[in-house]
Amino acid sequence: MDNRNWDTFLIPYEQAVEELKIKFKGIRKEFKKREEYSPIEFVTGRVKRISSIFDKAKRLNVSMEEIDTGIEDIAGIRIMCQFVDDIYKVRDLILQRDQKDMTIVYEKDYVNHKKESGYRSHHIIIKYPVQTSIGQRVILAEIQIRTLAMNFWATIEHSLNYKYAQNIPPRIRERLAKAAEAAYELDQEMSLIREEVMEAQQEFETKSQL
Amino acid sequence: MDNRNWDTFLIPYEQAVEELKIKFKGIRKEFKKREEYSPIEFVTGRVKRISSIFDKAKRLNVSMEEIDTGIEDIAGIRIMCQFVDDIYKVRDLILQRDQKDMTIVYEKDYVNHKKESGYRSHHIIIKYPVQTSIGQRVILAEIQIRTLAMNFWATIEHSLNYKYAQNIPPRIRERLAKAAEAAYELDQEMSLIREEVMEAQQEFETKSQL
Amino acid sequence: MDNRNWDTFLIPYEQAVEELKIKFKGIRKEFKKREEYSPIEFVTGRVKRISSIFDKAKRLNVSMEEIDTGIEDIAGIRIMCQFVDDIYKVRDLILQRDQKDMTIVYEKDYVNHKKESGYRSHHIIIKYPVQTSIGQRVILAEIQIRTLAMNFWATIEHSLNYKYAQNIPPRIRERLAKAAEAAYELDQEMSLIREEVMEAQQEFETKSQL
Amino acid sequence: MDNRNWDTFLIPYEQAVEELKIKFKGIRKEFKKREEYSPIEFVTGRVKRISSIFDKAKRLNVSMEEIDTGIEDIAGIRIMCQFVDDIYKVRDLILQRDQKDMTIVYEKDYVNHKKESGYRSHHIIIKYPVQTSIGQRVILAEIQIRTLAMNFWATIEHSLNYKYAQNIPPRIRERLAKAAEAAYELDQEMSLIREEVMEAQQEFETKSQL
Repeated sequence: MDNRNWDTFLIPYEQAVEELKIKFKGIRKEFKKREEYSPIEFVTGRVKRISSIFDKAKRLNVSMEEIDTGIEDIAGIRIMCQFVDDIYKVRDLILQRDQKDMTIVYEKDYVNHKKESGYRSHHIIIKYPVQTSIGQRVILAEIQIRTLAMNFWATIEHSLNYKYAQNIPPRIRERLAKAAEAAYELDQEMSLIREEVMEAQQEFETKSQL
Repeated sequence: MDNRNWDTFLIPYEQAVEELKIKFKGIRKEFKKREEYSPIEFVTGRVKRISSIFDKAKRLNVSMEEIDTGIEDIAGIRIMCQFVDDIYKVRDLILQRDQKDMTIVYEKDYVNHKKESGYRSHHIIIKYPVQTSIGQRVILAEIQIRTLAMNFWATIEHSLNYKYAQNIPPRIRERLAKAAEAAYELDQEMSLIREEVMEAQQEFETKSQL
Repeated sequence: MDNRNWDTFLIPYEQAVEELKIKFKGIRKEFKKREEYSPIEFVTGRVKRISSIFDKAKRLNVSMEEIDTGIEDIAGIRIMCQFVDDIYKVRDLILQRDQKDMTIVYEKDYVNHKKESGYRSHHIIIKYPVQTSIGQRVILAEIQIRTLAMNFWATIEHSLNYKYAQNIPPRIRERLAKAAEAAYELDQEMSLIREEVMEAQQEFETKSQL
Repeated sequence: MDNRNWDTFLIPYEQAVEELKIKFKGIRKEFKKREEYSPIEFVTGRVKRISSIFDKAKRLNVSMEEIDTGIEDIAGIRIMCQFVDDIYKVRDLILQRDQKDMTIVYEKDYVNHKKESGYRSHHIIIKYPVQTSIGQRVILAEIQIRTLAMNFWATIEHSLNYKYAQNIPPRIRERLAKAAEAAYELDQEMSLIREEVMEAQQEFETKSQL
């Protein structure tokens, strides 16, 4: 395929990312409208660049013909949460859409089972149908759900991985692992406050009923 | 229902409008990416205000319980085209999505059969499924497809109708009808250029094949 | 200059367009907040593409070194109005900012003095200071103020000019001129309604004082 | 003043926030265009709600007539950085605009001198001129510059302060202080990586010169 065809190849992925961003941002809006706590803090999305798709295909030994099934994160959505527990609330909201506007393919729980690098996030791979001017296409998309601290760390790691071509020197890798620990500690401390806040709210609600 | 409940009532309509705007804007993007002419110039959307819903319910004699079936334009999408012929291209693109991400309920052709006031537009009423935090809701939405000139006129008429509470004085109504005629003339002139342009393009393509 | 330098060259123009769009959209917002009629319907902006800058430099015989003073519309802002009279209201609002956040260089009144092609719009050339990471740069920008009908016609003419490389065939040029006439007629009809509306409002205000 | 007047009072503040967001987002865009590291990660802004302005005026003993000089954060801009050192780079970029499109009033360094609560951020109070339809108005605005971790913590503290009406119970206050420590640790760890990255880049640049 020439450059032109690859641009056309990405059309349904770009449309999927736009639609999924609107859908998950819509969940946050809905909670706010109902005056309830939103487990979603903010949402971002991106389509993988052609050059990165090619790099990953080579690394994973995926042929050009199988790219749409072999690479699962050409369309990527990222959902950021304030607290670790929110991650699972968001996960449940997504699972409840299964067989409706999207289909769950599988999940990877890197929150409880962190990667060796220190990476934490919950991943859900979905199938998503997109209507184009030449008919329906069903594409794969990866949804990453993580706390703000996990996201901060992952962003730093991603840029280092890019710089070192997936080959971060040991000394920096150690530092990264330590930073991952610090991010984890922050999330733990915050989780404790979440409970305090909820207890406090509980007290308040109960009192106002008397 | 109190105010609070009406706000909640509108949640799926607001989500539908956001999603439909992204979907129809996506059609334009797709044509541009394919380096083809886009029949869609731009897209807008809005949710009817609670007070306007109540006014219309009263006018149409629709009870509060039947509002979601009796008022079809609580969610409204407007698609603007450069040329009259583009309206039907857009219509076909929408009909081709029937039973996929939306369901066509019925159409009203006010382009060939203008209203007495001079109003022209093509209307399509659809059913559209929205996923909310408390499950799926299927809502009605009205899609209006019109040229830029039709849209300009309709905007003016709408504000006069609002001012005069649907009761525009005869003298102004006549002027409005004349303006509708002028808008129609402009669309006719533009349609002629569209054909010229296409002929010219045809000549050009043919020549470049020699 | 190589491509890289041209990208850098455009940085302050891109920033100027973003700031000016926010400023003129702000005028509309302000009128709405004050519950007054806004003479601005909507605002768009764009930076001229490098290839179009080069084409125009060649056509106008402007050397590469003089591009920033010789080409006045590298940064372009377009303000659309509902009625012809609104154009002059917007013009006054801009003139009143002279020596404040922008400086007026000169004006071209193509509304009362249409171009031979049929083109109508009011142009204002301004100097606008932009703060960059390497200090302040003052750039030229062109503001075009026009009605919706003028804008519609101008968009069509622009695409034909692009297609025919500024050399539209006579037969099409005639058709274009006729369409410009139709657009002008529409604006005239609309202007009459504007007065009706204002008279009607006047009556209403007066009555409510009794 | 009645509600209507307060809405009008906020117009220049809303315009200032829109313009300042575009200006600071423009800095990030500029660095990216120059293919340089951007010290700005993202930018947000908001106008204080009328009710919060009144609450703060009461707390600070500011009379209604002095609100525009006595409350400095009616217009608020927040700039988020990846690393602590980036905060001072952003500060310098802002100071360099002094007497150009804004005027620096004073600074508060809560990064090196954290508040008792654990709050860290660098604050800059500026004067900013806004052009309105009734002439120029110069307003005060507060710019907060902070790391992602500082921002995360501050967001949590803000919501607790809101819930407890500035009167957070001691036990929760202690937990918050501990979380602030964890956020600080994360920033410290990240700072170490920043240096590693820069050393690594330095090595790379030096090598590629040989």
